[in-house]
Amino acid sequence: MAETFSDAERDTVHRLIRTRRDIRHFSAMPVPTDILIRMLEAAHQAPSVGFMQPWNFILVSSLEIRRQIKASFESTNAVELNKLNDMDRQNLYRQLKLEGILESPLNIAVTCDRRRDAPFVLGRAPMPDTDVYSTCLAIQNMWLAGRVEGIGLGWISLIDHAATGKILHLPEGVKLVAYLCVGYPVEFRAKPLLEEVGWKSRLSLNALVYQDTWGTPAQVLIP
Amino acid sequence: MAETFSDAERDTVHRLIRTRRDIRHFSAMPVPTDILIRMLEAAHQAPSVGFMQPWNFILVSSLEIRRQIKASFESTNAVELNKLNDMDRQNLYRQLKLEGILESPLNIAVTCDRRRDAPFVLGRAPMPDTDVYSTCLAIQNMWLAGRVEGIGLGWISLIDHAATGKILHLPEGVKLVAYLCVGYPVEFRAKPLLEEVGWKSRLSLNALVYQDTWGTPAQVLIP
Repeated sequence: MAETFSDAERDTVHRLIRTRRDIRHFSAMPVPTDILIRMLEAAHQAPSVGFMQPWNFILVSSLEIRRQIKASFESTNAVELNKLNDMDRQNLYRQLKLEGILESPLNIAVTCDRRRDAPFVLGRAPMPDTDVYSTCLAIQNMWLAGRVEGIGLGWISLIDHAATGKILHLPEGVKLVAYLCVGYPVEFRAKPLLEEVGWKSRLSLNALVYQDTWGTPAQVLIP
Repeated sequence: MAETFSDAERDTVHRLIRTRRDIRHFSAMPVPTDILIRMLEAAHQAPSVGFMQPWNFILVSSLEIRRQIKASFESTNAVELNKLNDMDRQNLYRQLKLEGILESPLNIAVTCDRRRDAPFVLGRAPMPDTDVYSTCLAIQNMWLAGRVEGIGLGWISLIDHAATGKILHLPEGVKLVAYLCVGYPVEFRAKPLLEEVGWKSRLSLNALVYQDTWGTPAQVLIP
């Protein structure tokens, strides 16, 4: 196999990576089945420790189930809001839309089946969580495959994972890694929302790169 | 921002995702600095919980440090080999090349700084490991950005992470997520190595997709 990519194709990939967003505002338009299949296929092409392929994808279209998960979000979110002492920060937080569970046409729960191939997974023993890491790599593939067709993903981290696992009937040994809202976004904004509203700035990449050991400035200078 | 992508661009992205490999055999040719920078920039564009950007990248070029890490690999690998009872399986395992720490021109350690933005990271509290997940998403971006320019990555999971953390002088609170070998591969093979040598087959995607709850077959049929 001698697959190569042109400079123009390289630039396309970087434009895709740069314009991917975490989406909270969705149109109700359904996700076409052929696009959904391509997104799942992209996820399934991710690398995995010992070729374990530990992922599953639960397509949550049922409104009844999504209402239960939304309720879990609401209570978790209220707890978080109360942790903020600064009133300005609390007001800013309150204005943020942090999920699109019911508005998006589809939710996808991505899980990691930690029992798969047990007890021996090549390369996994020194760091058992590499199965979960593999699942994350699959999610990024799916995220990019969605974006290239105009589909947005929103990763909802503010849910009670134990409660959600029960709602989705996850067996013991299967871990919920991500709960995603999926659909056409109202828009892909130019910057991440938290950057745009002034919650937090993008860090300087150059300061995040070290040489040989932690804290030693890198020889390469990133503009 | 109304960035859209053509069908041809979509196909390029899927070709990229399909032809990415976990590389073990490297040429000694150095990674050009401009490509390395683009790979790091792609990583830094990954999504992160609460826009935390918890990643750092340690560019390990020192041969002395890499020799120490290679020694850690050797002892971990010997332990793993002895776990296999089946002699055929043990022989197959022995033939697998599982790292390219010294042959590759560059190693990159990717870490997650769990102290960043402490104590309050928006959205992280219900699942503290989402910072590590964000770091994995950055790694997949870097992996794809490398592949599109002909650079291969190999994720070495068979190292002692505590020992490697000491070698790299990681402070407490900074977690080593991935140790990567980086460089031009001898080749990008058509299939994952573990599939090619018969260690394990690719699973049927259709069997991994459920509807609404775990175990319920999906309505969408994946060919």
